[in-house]
Amino acid sequence: MTPFSKLRLTVWNEYRHELENPLVSAHYPQGIHTVLAEGLRAHGFEHVQTATLDQPEHGLSDEVLEQTDVMLWWGHKAHADVSDDVAAKVVARVQGGMGLIVLHSGHFSKPFKTLMGTGCDLKWREAGEKERLWVVNPAHPVAQGVGEFIELEHEEMYGEHFDIPAPDELVFVSWFAGGEVFRSGCTFTRGSGKIFYFRPGHETFPTYHHPQIQQVIANAARWAAPTASAPRSFGHRPQPLEAL
Amino acid sequence: MTPFSKLRLTVWNEYRHELENPLVSAHYPQGIHTVLAEGLRAHGFEHVQTATLDQPEHGLSDEVLEQTDVMLWWGHKAHADVSDDVAAKVVARVQGGMGLIVLHSGHFSKPFKTLMGTGCDLKWREAGEKERLWVVNPAHPVAQGVGEFIELEHEEMYGEHFDIPAPDELVFVSWFAGGEVFRSGCTFTRGSGKIFYFRPGHETFPTYHHPQIQQVIANAARWAAPTASAPRSFGHRPQPLEAL
Amino acid sequence: MTPFSKLRLTVWNEYRHELENPLVSAHYPQGIHTVLAEGLRAHGFEHVQTATLDQPEHGLSDEVLEQTDVMLWWGHKAHADVSDDVAAKVVARVQGGMGLIVLHSGHFSKPFKTLMGTGCDLKWREAGEKERLWVVNPAHPVAQGVGEFIELEHEEMYGEHFDIPAPDELVFVSWFAGGEVFRSGCTFTRGSGKIFYFRPGHETFPTYHHPQIQQVIANAARWAAPTASAPRSFGHRPQPLEAL
Amino acid sequence: MTPFSKLRLTVWNEYRHELENPLVSAHYPQGIHTVLAEGLRAHGFEHVQTATLDQPEHGLSDEVLEQTDVMLWWGHKAHADVSDDVAAKVVARVQGGMGLIVLHSGHFSKPFKTLMGTGCDLKWREAGEKERLWVVNPAHPVAQGVGEFIELEHEEMYGEHFDIPAPDELVFVSWFAGGEVFRSGCTFTRGSGKIFYFRPGHETFPTYHHPQIQQVIANAARWAAPTASAPRSFGHRPQPLEAL
Repeated sequence: MTPFSKLRLTVWNEYRHELENPLVSAHYPQGIHTVLAEGLRAHGFEHVQTATLDQPEHGLSDEVLEQTDVMLWWGHKAHADVSDDVAAKVVARVQGGMGLIVLHSGHFSKPFKTLMGTGCDLKWREAGEKERLWVVNPAHPVAQGVGEFIELEHEEMYGEHFDIPAPDELVFVSWFAGGEVFRSGCTFTRGSGKIFYFRPGHETFPTYHHPQIQQVIANAARWAAPTASAPRSFGHRPQPLEAL
Repeated sequence: MTPFSKLRLTVWNEYRHELENPLVSAHYPQGIHTVLAEGLRAHGFEHVQTATLDQPEHGLSDEVLEQTDVMLWWGHKAHADVSDDVAAKVVARVQGGMGLIVLHSGHFSKPFKTLMGTGCDLKWREAGEKERLWVVNPAHPVAQGVGEFIELEHEEMYGEHFDIPAPDELVFVSWFAGGEVFRSGCTFTRGSGKIFYFRPGHETFPTYHHPQIQQVIANAARWAAPTASAPRSFGHRPQPLEAL
Repeated sequence: MTPFSKLRLTVWNEYRHELENPLVSAHYPQGIHTVLAEGLRAHGFEHVQTATLDQPEHGLSDEVLEQTDVMLWWGHKAHADVSDDVAAKVVARVQGGMGLIVLHSGHFSKPFKTLMGTGCDLKWREAGEKERLWVVNPAHPVAQGVGEFIELEHEEMYGEHFDIPAPDELVFVSWFAGGEVFRSGCTFTRGSGKIFYFRPGHETFPTYHHPQIQQVIANAARWAAPTASAPRSFGHRPQPLEAL
Repeated sequence: MTPFSKLRLTVWNEYRHELENPLVSAHYPQGIHTVLAEGLRAHGFEHVQTATLDQPEHGLSDEVLEQTDVMLWWGHKAHADVSDDVAAKVVARVQGGMGLIVLHSGHFSKPFKTLMGTGCDLKWREAGEKERLWVVNPAHPVAQGVGEFIELEHEEMYGEHFDIPAPDELVFVSWFAGGEVFRSGCTFTRGSGKIFYFRPGHETFPTYHHPQIQQVIANAARWAAPTASAPRSFGHRPQPLEAL
């Protein structure tokens, strides 16, 4: 079993807000991906690389994809600029065993929507209001070390209904000062791949600098790592097993 | 298939607060069970009876149990006064197919704890604060006709962590003004019996007079009705099916 | 609530095997869809129509789709001939609340694969071997009235691994004489729509004439009917609820 | 995080068949617990102890319980001889975070039944027939390294319906030559504790010597280890968080 420190992580970021909006670059001068990658390295991951939308092939060549154990995905206003081809390759890699951590507005990304089979829509409000993420599944490895809740002083609101399939496991539920709730930490399995959706992280707030948020993301990267899973084989089996 | 109007419902209530506390009897002069029963009749159920703790056998004779399709359970301060024998009979009836709707502080009742296999504890606060129950599973029959959320101006707070097994289906999540969230509408199956836990209903508030709350409870009674389910048989099968 | 007899059902069938292969037309001289529709009518559904691949728009005009409460889908060798446009409309209708019952080789249909987000592959063998579908969830309405198992003397084998997301509910598990097992009856929810996948029904066997199989399909049609579900609304909510 | 090799495992065995029946002692001369313990040590666990029914306190003193991270449980004909007090302590430890692996006829043990809230009954036949355990959840860590199925030439049959709550995750489904199926590998969480039920292991067969069976049990011991889980706190919270 691969020690977790050797897992190969790729942090994918749209990386446009940071280049255009000083409110964003104030928090993330080198991009959201850089802060995410540094947080993961601080938690002991030795092989963390980044990739962004405007790189060739969005930074996700076949080689990069093949050498990624767990991918993180942050995107927001340019989901449509992700090529169908790259999105399909990411989906195929997840189904083949790569872990995927979808962050915040990544709920509307092509890979996530394809893997869910639903519209993935929700309610939202940019009022910088307080969010409190309650742990509802304390035994889950993704919730280790974060206490009973995480409090974020200022975040964008996401509210139910969140149009996803019933998650395999529900780990966090968010409370918002403005009156809404949201299923903020959800696990799914598709094929051999594990998926964790984690809500917080609007670009105009310093959320990804928060120690507990970094802890959850590091936990999720470990949890989503491919297992040396049972082989999956398909197709024609002309001989009954009982006759072999 | 029995028309829902013919389902035989038994509303069980501890019925002590109402006799001792004028704040409670102000809302429920004839007991919480009476208001619940009237709400169900108003939704078309023709066979609604009530039973209370201080009746002989707590009002739950073998005959009553055998003739109940769905039971509602409200208890709070006298869980320990329910005899182990009657609690065990209720559990057995649920496992045999009777529906069970557990209300509010019934989370700590003997039947519910036995059916869950967990401690069923939670956080609580009596501050009369606002509760908003959000529908997170809009396709579920229990949520029919209630809109996107139910708002209760004054309720007791229940907060996570709620120590239950992961519910089969999560239908409602509550937001509380004081800062907590709670999984407020949860379904479970045990044996052939369907169980719905529904959080609201503190005795000092008029919650069970609320039209949307009555709607959810009526929905739940229909949903929890026994199905003409597949028979369940157990035990020794000396002959292989393939040899019969 | 619509009486179930008034539900509007559309049975969609590829309808090519029956026109080309006398082994198939021997069982289904007027097509699989005709036998399925007759079985549903015999169970009390008054509004059952059929649609087939080679009709204009595959028989699934916008008007037909809008007036369908539950759709059944049988396809096998011509999945690719279903237009992406019609497949997308079916998916959208399911997400909007239409029930969908996917039969046998429909596991590889465009709508099902899109709604699952997985490859939906499996093992198979055409040896006409015995299949026994065991009820593992006897309280589920889809299993009503079928006894502990359904035995089919001759069927195509489908074997695990079946590449689907973990179903919301598992109702049937198949045993095959040749040595495999299969999750044969699975429920899913996508958006407001309920989906039931039901394995049996290879075209060269008279499976859809079998009374218990017809019973399950009728049960599923009732179960998958749209509920007067809670409204789902999405998008910008500039005003906090607490400020309204 | 504790390296898995340092986990403290306690293998509990009824240990009566082996002392009375030469057919059993032929396979397990020093008891089933000894073979299970050796298998775990061979997979790298350094702290494996055993306990048996006829030891004082069934070998499960408070000290032993407190120092156990994961317990394995094999019992069959003497479930009633396990004291209610010890059974209750085991249940409490599981709810508090101890992992529990329930083997074969342990389905009827006091701790398992209490944790499930159901009758846990099933069908059975001692015909020494072939069992094939199919992996239906290949990404699950409990299924690592076992291939697509495990074949046992001779085992007791257990058949559906298995009267348990719907498992959180279904990992294995068994096929039996005699015609039945069974949900053979099931996960549950109760409180902070993870539970894995694993079907095979009738005392008159050498099942626990089988390398793949040992692999699954070792996987399960790692999977069920307590996480440094989020704290769970309960009770009165007089101050709204928002007022603190």
